[in-house]
Amino acid sequence: MTSQGNNLDRWYGHYADRTAGLSASEVRALFAVASRPEVVSLAGGMPYVSAIPSDLITGSMERVMRDSGPAALQYGSGQGVPALREHILDVMAMEGIRANVDDVVVTTGSQHALELVTKLFINPGDVVLAEGPSYVTAMVVFRSFQAQVEHVEMDDLGLVPEALRQRIAALKADGKRIKFLYTIPTFSNPAGVTLSWERRLEILEIARSNDILVLEDNPYGLLYFDGPPPQAMRSVEEDGVVYLGTFSKTLAPGFRVGWALAPHAIREKLILANEAAVLSPSSFTQMIISDYLSQADWRGQIGTFRDVYRERRDAMLHALEDYLPDLSWTKPAGGFYVWLTLPENLDSKSMLPRAVRELVAYTPGTAFYADGSGRNKMRLAFCYPQPDFIREGIRRLSTVINGELELLTTFSQTAPLRVDRRQKNAINPPANLG
Amino acid sequence: MTSQGNNLDRWYGHYADRTAGLSASEVRALFAVASRPEVVSLAGGMPYVSAIPSDLITGSMERVMRDSGPAALQYGSGQGVPALREHILDVMAMEGIRANVDDVVVTTGSQHALELVTKLFINPGDVVLAEGPSYVTAMVVFRSFQAQVEHVEMDDLGLVPEALRQRIAALKADGKRIKFLYTIPTFSNPAGVTLSWERRLEILEIARSNDILVLEDNPYGLLYFDGPPPQAMRSVEEDGVVYLGTFSKTLAPGFRVGWALAPHAIREKLILANEAAVLSPSSFTQMIISDYLSQADWRGQIGTFRDVYRERRDAMLHALEDYLPDLSWTKPAGGFYVWLTLPENLDSKSMLPRAVRELVAYTPGTAFYADGSGRNKMRLAFCYPQPDFIREGIRRLSTVINGELELLTTFSQTAPLRVDRRQKNAINPPANLG
Repeated sequence: MTSQGNNLDRWYGHYADRTAGLSASEVRALFAVASRPEVVSLAGGMPYVSAIPSDLITGSMERVMRDSGPAALQYGSGQGVPALREHILDVMAMEGIRANVDDVVVTTGSQHALELVTKLFINPGDVVLAEGPSYVTAMVVFRSFQAQVEHVEMDDLGLVPEALRQRIAALKADGKRIKFLYTIPTFSNPAGVTLSWERRLEILEIARSNDILVLEDNPYGLLYFDGPPPQAMRSVEEDGVVYLGTFSKTLAPGFRVGWALAPHAIREKLILANEAAVLSPSSFTQMIISDYLSQADWRGQIGTFRDVYRERRDAMLHALEDYLPDLSWTKPAGGFYVWLTLPENLDSKSMLPRAVRELVAYTPGTAFYADGSGRNKMRLAFCYPQPDFIREGIRRLSTVINGELELLTTFSQTAPLRVDRRQKNAINPPANLG
Repeated sequence: MTSQGNNLDRWYGHYADRTAGLSASEVRALFAVASRPEVVSLAGGMPYVSAIPSDLITGSMERVMRDSGPAALQYGSGQGVPALREHILDVMAMEGIRANVDDVVVTTGSQHALELVTKLFINPGDVVLAEGPSYVTAMVVFRSFQAQVEHVEMDDLGLVPEALRQRIAALKADGKRIKFLYTIPTFSNPAGVTLSWERRLEILEIARSNDILVLEDNPYGLLYFDGPPPQAMRSVEEDGVVYLGTFSKTLAPGFRVGWALAPHAIREKLILANEAAVLSPSSFTQMIISDYLSQADWRGQIGTFRDVYRERRDAMLHALEDYLPDLSWTKPAGGFYVWLTLPENLDSKSMLPRAVRELVAYTPGTAFYADGSGRNKMRLAFCYPQPDFIREGIRRLSTVINGELELLTTFSQTAPLRVDRRQKNAINPPANLG
């Protein structure tokens, strides 16, 4: 058969307009290399599932198959297994949320809730507001439905309310239709910062008065290291918030079980969208998790995860202080991530191949912006490697950064044009890291 | 908080245009009633999972957790577990398909492959061609992306090639953009008929010459009762077919594991769409199925399913001959469904509440058409109830149908207007079933 398309893909020209928004990550190939065991990967957000005693999971599986095998193997409800939804209320209660079991919709990871909510709300050209920086695969979803992602400034206390107000006003003045604010208020991905309680209230008020739905994504809230964070935004606002939760970080991502808690009318549409997409989420994995939550000390297990990740956060912060003392980074009180700022004239993406050659990987900052920002930023994930590997990874990273800076210095001595450019960018002059 | 929308939903007016296509089934509430144990349900397409020895599943789970627990609990590849994709090649080989493991994308049931392919290809207003009747939840997906579904006539040998040719010509003359032909060529849902080999070749040629992608959905192909059906359309055409397969009918739907086999370029985009939607399909359920396929006699298990469903098909066909001898229905050589034609003046949807009161349920024919056709049709699923329940279900159904016909006769004696209408429709005069 001959190609009838105008490139190597015979079906080129047949795709939907939205498909242009689905592009492969530029660093995808590199991450395949970075998964080799000798590389210390500070790139991926993989939870440390080895901290879960596997006999707990096996025990739950055996009970489920023994007591309700045919139900576990069968199609289920498009809303999810009722017993699991009851347990989900208990999980959310730990962050101050009171809800009705009817308003919970179980999804194939909270990622799928994100996809379904976006499918329900976004027409091409609609605006989604998001923190800058924001979760990379959320932005992929938004773009895949042709949303315009607009970042709002954040600082060490999270999203800046005044910046949000101004951005909304500007977008409205521009005739834009803002559909929702996507936010990870607690231990954010990638910035590792937490929205203060006062700002939560203020941002809810801004959203309410501008008729903007809040999409509160909270995968990390229970993984705090220094005491509980502020309660969920959903705890004070019912009908203006769609809340997303997951078992991927407090139990295991391999089950692909997350959920949305949504106002009645949205929840109804979410169930229909869920049924269209997957008929029903897996009864099998839902029932195993439901059994685990009723039989195991799951709160204790979350405590174990806190201890594991606290130790790794500490290892990363100490290593950064020791090896990269002149740079700045966020100090997360929970979650998985540190957000590092490089000297202005370094580019974390172009530096990545060199880092992988030095056997350390991270995620370049530009991945977390829809607008090309973040060139001199990077996300460092401390969730997966053991503490001493984290330290070694940061040591290697410091070698790479210092090498890049030396290279720039060498260039600046031999290539006057580059000196100029460097001087222009040197508003925050790079520290001598040598 | 007060409602700011113009109905009870505060967010009314905020939804995407496509969301209008997601409406609840009219018979949804009734099916909730129909799930009571005293009702013989010939409505749902639930496989008889009790035919699977549960110790096989438990054994696979235990081995997976023992030998590779951390991998099973972790995020996986957006394309699916490589070992499982190898096994999928063996499964497809049984229907004549030769493929490369790189072109298989594992999805959350084949339903999700359907959603993702539709997301990749359909702009609002694009045409999807489908058999009339066609799978109900496929049409929900197409509508949820604002496709225009156009049915093509089928008969006892499946889709009619000449009808397809004419429909394509008419649509093209009308300036319509046809994106793909969605077909269930083998033991179709709901019609229970199988496309002949000659027609498969003819239809592939029609699609090729009109530059239309074929989406071949094949959940039932291995469940034949009287010898293997014609080989898959994908077996003779690689780059014009996206093939969908699933473990829901040959193993169990509770795992939610299906797949797409797609031409290279489409497969690349499918992986990206899969990652956006769910990050990765469940490693846990994929690895359990992979172990099951390498350890258990899965071909023998499919043979068991064939025996179970053959007996039920026979029970249904015999009961129909005994209780409804004057009606007509399809005689499936595999799969789950019989398609029954009522007298012209009966309406299967309006008759359904009465049927449920008589403790039997079915799916009304209109559910399987996008255009309101199928009023005097119904789908009878023989997959789930035991044979004697199937017989009892058909007996109850005959009572309902005869009752409806008597009611019409009574009306026709007291209300002349209705006699007229009945006579007008009586091209195929309803038999006396009393």
